[in-house]
Amino acid sequence: MAQLEVSDFAQAVIDRMGECKDARFKQVMTSLVKHAHAFMREVDLTPDEWMAGIQFLTETGKKCDEKRQEFILLSDTLGISMLIVALAQARGAKALAEQPGERPTEATVQGPFFWPGAPQKELGDDIGAGLGEPTLYHGRVTDTSGRPIAGCVVDVWSGDEGGLYDMQKGDEMSLRAQFRTDKDGNYRFWSIKPTYYPVPGDGPVGRMLDKMGRHLNRPGHMHMMLDAPGHEKLVTHIFVKDSPYLDSDAVFGVRNSLIVEFPKHAPGKAPDGRSMDKPFYTAKYDFRLVPSMR
Amino acid sequence: MAQLEVSDFAQAVIDRMGECKDARFKQVMTSLVKHAHAFMREVDLTPDEWMAGIQFLTETGKKCDEKRQEFILLSDTLGISMLIVALAQARGAKALAEQPGERPTEATVQGPFFWPGAPQKELGDDIGAGLGEPTLYHGRVTDTSGRPIAGCVVDVWSGDEGGLYDMQKGDEMSLRAQFRTDKDGNYRFWSIKPTYYPVPGDGPVGRMLDKMGRHLNRPGHMHMMLDAPGHEKLVTHIFVKDSPYLDSDAVFGVRNSLIVEFPKHAPGKAPDGRSMDKPFYTAKYDFRLVPSMR
Ligand SMILES: [Fe+2]
Ligand SMILES: [Fe+2]
Repeated sequence: MAQLEVSDFAQAVIDRMGECKDARFKQVMTSLVKHAHAFMREVDLTPDEWMAGIQFLTETGKKCDEKRQEFILLSDTLGISMLIVALAQARGAKALAEQPGERPTEATVQGPFFWPGAPQKELGDDIGAGLGEPTLYHGRVTDTSGRPIAGCVVDVWSGDEGGLYDMQKGDEMSLRAQFRTDKDGNYRFWSIKPTYYPVPGDGPVGRMLDKMGRHLNRPGHMHMMLDAPGHEKLVTHIFVKDSPYLDSDAVFGVRNSLIVEFPKHAPGKAPDGRSMDKPFYTAKYDFRLVPSMR
Repeated sequence: MAQLEVSDFAQAVIDRMGECKDARFKQVMTSLVKHAHAFMREVDLTPDEWMAGIQFLTETGKKCDEKRQEFILLSDTLGISMLIVALAQARGAKALAEQPGERPTEATVQGPFFWPGAPQKELGDDIGAGLGEPTLYHGRVTDTSGRPIAGCVVDVWSGDEGGLYDMQKGDEMSLRAQFRTDKDGNYRFWSIKPTYYPVPGDGPVGRMLDKMGRHLNRPGHMHMMLDAPGHEKLVTHIFVKDSPYLDSDAVFGVRNSLIVEFPKHAPGKAPDGRSMDKPFYTAKYDFRLVPSMR
């Protein structure tokens, strides 16, 4: 038998897939094995370093539960989640290239704090719970040809005035809700102006980031997920224009087109007619959804 | 701000390590991020595939406990553990190149079934527990210059006649022991002739192998770990020459120099003087250890 040398092992693993029935799985595993081996050869990884890696992965798995997904956090902080979003967006753009119309709204990471089943609220409702700096979010949802999308479900969520999400604090939902656009595609709701916050740093990923010499912070953002029949679901954020860390988001999620001005207003009548007795902010953003591709 | 495109994310992550104080960690993470992103771009990984990967890693973590290390099994079956062994061996060979003497015994994977603290036995003892086909293992431990190594601890372990290891069956040790070489570097003990066996297939790694179209089997082998003061510890196997799966070991651990003849003998007097009333096998193997490198 020919003896496998350092540079042969990857191909030996790949050659073992002769009976693989799933062509796409085979393609993915082939590339994964090729790159994983290339990485280890390139850095001449030692047994101790390899064992540290095994322990890191094991601990990351142990840290996962219903409310904490440490592997997604790992993927987020290594720029992988955002790469996956960008690859999907690029595939979509290619499919759309021959159609008329505007470019769709950019997507970004979903993050670990989406909690399905948020309360359904009426347009104009305030979900800010009296916290932080009140902000009116409003705008219009259309397709890429500019046609308004009525009845689009708009799921929104953010951290509190200190940057903590409800699920980090306990079992009660807050600062999250579902709205539906009106017949002209308009949405509006009140919440708080979101602040920057650190991703969870008390697990193995936090230790990794510390060792990499990185901070944990994300710039202030309101999560928004838009879902309408006949259109591709959009998972994105609105970023606060004056927020710290816009140029160094711990999860690489910032897209220029998603950075929004939050003008401050003196007490008085807000654009939706509400009478405010303290200063407030407004954030206007229009969304364009892509027609369903499957 | 310049917008990050698909091909920019890896470098953006790497650039975030400006404050990293550990040069080796930075080198490893740089290569890891570069290759991880290259893999995902190469296969244009979809969000659903990414999520399947997250779930696979999470489940692999959850499967790990004191007796089961599913991440090591993953590493083993993707040829990564053996690559790490081969890289270490190549580094050692380089360091030894200018010294006289023979090449040291080749290493192979440790596998998941090492259990520290095996009972200390006397040379010539039988640890076969009356199972399977009795085999006398014997040989000599020297350094690469041929000088015998006395008092070398020889840890041995194998599965039973059906290929199951003690720790897969319960809390009682069996078919494992520690011996010490005599003043001339000789060792000898009785155990069974090991049979091929499948790696544990009831977890996420088993499902991966199935999807890859691969079998789970390892050719028959006796695990041997040699540790002597002033020498590098050696973790290796003796492979049974006529065993099935020698050319397709599920963990890619076979080295030609570790394949050993197991001649069969009629009942009668064994080479160590023991009188056998049934047929038995012998396996002779001499080990050469490397002087300590640190
Ligand atoms: Fe967030
Ligand atoms: Fe084994």
